[in-house]
Amino acid sequence: MTGPSAGGLPMAVALPGLPARVRIHEVGARDGLQNEKSVVPTEVKAEFIHRLAGAGLTTIEATSFVHPKWVPQLADAERLFPLLGDLPDIALPVLVPNARGLERALALGARRVAVFGSATESFARANLNRSVAGSLAMFAPVVARARAEGLHVRGYLSMCFGDPWEGAVPVARVAEVAKELLDLGCDELSLGDTIGVATPGHVAALLTELTGRGVAVDAIGVHFHDTYGQALANTLVALQHGVTTVDASAGGLGGCPFAKSATGNLATEDLVWMLDGLGIDTGVDLGRLTATSRWLAGRLGRPSPSRTVRALSPEQAQSPSSEE
Amino acid sequence: MTGPSAGGLPMAVALPGLPARVRIHEVGARDGLQNEKSVVPTEVKAEFIHRLAGAGLTTIEATSFVHPKWVPQLADAERLFPLLGDLPDIALPVLVPNARGLERALALGARRVAVFGSATESFARANLNRSVAGSLAMFAPVVARARAEGLHVRGYLSMCFGDPWEGAVPVARVAEVAKELLDLGCDELSLGDTIGVATPGHVAALLTELTGRGVAVDAIGVHFHDTYGQALANTLVALQHGVTTVDASAGGLGGCPFAKSATGNLATEDLVWMLDGLGIDTGVDLGRLTATSRWLAGRLGRPSPSRTVRALSPEQAQSPSSEE
Repeated sequence: MTGPSAGGLPMAVALPGLPARVRIHEVGARDGLQNEKSVVPTEVKAEFIHRLAGAGLTTIEATSFVHPKWVPQLADAERLFPLLGDLPDIALPVLVPNARGLERALALGARRVAVFGSATESFARANLNRSVAGSLAMFAPVVARARAEGLHVRGYLSMCFGDPWEGAVPVARVAEVAKELLDLGCDELSLGDTIGVATPGHVAALLTELTGRGVAVDAIGVHFHDTYGQALANTLVALQHGVTTVDASAGGLGGCPFAKSATGNLATEDLVWMLDGLGIDTGVDLGRLTATSRWLAGRLGRPSPSRTVRALSPEQAQSPSSEE
Repeated sequence: MTGPSAGGLPMAVALPGLPARVRIHEVGARDGLQNEKSVVPTEVKAEFIHRLAGAGLTTIEATSFVHPKWVPQLADAERLFPLLGDLPDIALPVLVPNARGLERALALGARRVAVFGSATESFARANLNRSVAGSLAMFAPVVARARAEGLHVRGYLSMCFGDPWEGAVPVARVAEVAKELLDLGCDELSLGDTIGVATPGHVAALLTELTGRGVAVDAIGVHFHDTYGQALANTLVALQHGVTTVDASAGGLGGCPFAKSATGNLATEDLVWMLDGLGIDTGVDLGRLTATSRWLAGRLGRPSPSRTVRALSPEQAQSPSSEE
């Protein structure tokens, strides 16, 4: 029996009201790998990013300039970033947790940075060791300095829907913190469903709240986790509300190391299958992307959790290490 | 850290335009178990169905009166069905492949039956050993006799979006066969994405084609597979088009034994998480349903593929057999 990929599937059928093009913000190399217990060699990370670029991804979050003590996996940022110098047309944002991280990124010539905030007090305390207000105060000079250097600044906002300590998070509260991040000078937000509990009505309500407060939909990205299988349905509703920036992780790598239940970033392949099916341009070649995730799964020694990667690579579930 | 289930999540936030109530057609005991290689004891099947009813499911497909040679797992239909006699308020449809199967079902007092057709010639040949027209001719007296006996008749239609041999399936062709099944006397259709390749625009196009031809949306059920992770996004679009009957399989059990790439029915738990989050009434208690799938996973000796079951049962992935 021929696999469906051989039959020109998915068939592209547009759904009225959706954007013509979506920019995928690929987070596998940073958000994905940072949860891997075994440290991945710097050269493998560099090859991963080159393969992602070869598959057509144009925004690839590369690493984090966090203190090595907190995320040993990304302690090689100074060695990795220069290996990406031959990708001048690819946006390579890097996470900068504080002023020291920004200086490290600037020293290497990074042109895009991201700060990582929280919508809830509990997660701000757990992840940043300060209050929401305190973390915004810490970001203020970082964002100002980055802007003064002409950098593009993304503001991650985590726990936008539910929080493991606080339960449901009010949309008004999320919108307040989001506005503050934008007021600091962030060019773009990424609304994170860090523990994966969001459902489509909640997503619509938050986006309506934000745009109702004057936030441009072009400044909003969405970052869904597939912990409860909801990420693609949530993405669809975000597209129906005009969002055109979607975060995803090749092969479904990663989650959040500080939130136990936060398994499963949305897999880029599952997203591309849907967008290809909707006739929405992403510039991504699904076959090359899937091959990249199979290759990395071989390096990591376990299969990808992406359903699309598994469906297109039936042999992979048995022997990931045999994949090249 | 407290799990999100303890925090009253998902938060219920309605999305405008969706139905207030959805009827879940639970297929785990038939469509799910029929793919299990090891024969499940009849008493375990009966307990599974009782537990599903206890979790609030009201339509539970119980078994199939197919020839035992084709599906040995369901060869105990005559022994199983009488064990369900204490569930008078639960709809317990059974699959009847032909006139002989219908007579067996009638002899046991079944009140709901289903026939299983194909939208494509290739799958009709592979699964039914005849053409689409030939299969409809075979179903005609079966449906007529069932109707004469006052039974409710469901018509499954498989390969409604893609076919492993034929690729994309034209919506006009699917609509033609669907209309013929209804004209035979079927009360309800179940549109199957047997190989899981559908995407939301394609789903919308097929539903628009059907209702444009006069098919009442109340007569349409949807049956999505999660092979490429698309099932919930497709379900959401179906709800946006007025569909109120959704097929799902507890714990994500099963697929189609005759279609190699057809892994992964939509998990009922993932569906209920979304519907709970949308404030749509299903009558299902997610906690009891998840406990049922954990219990069955223990009996089958492997973890559930449902993301929601895994997220709500973190210990289950390590030791499914310890779950009761």
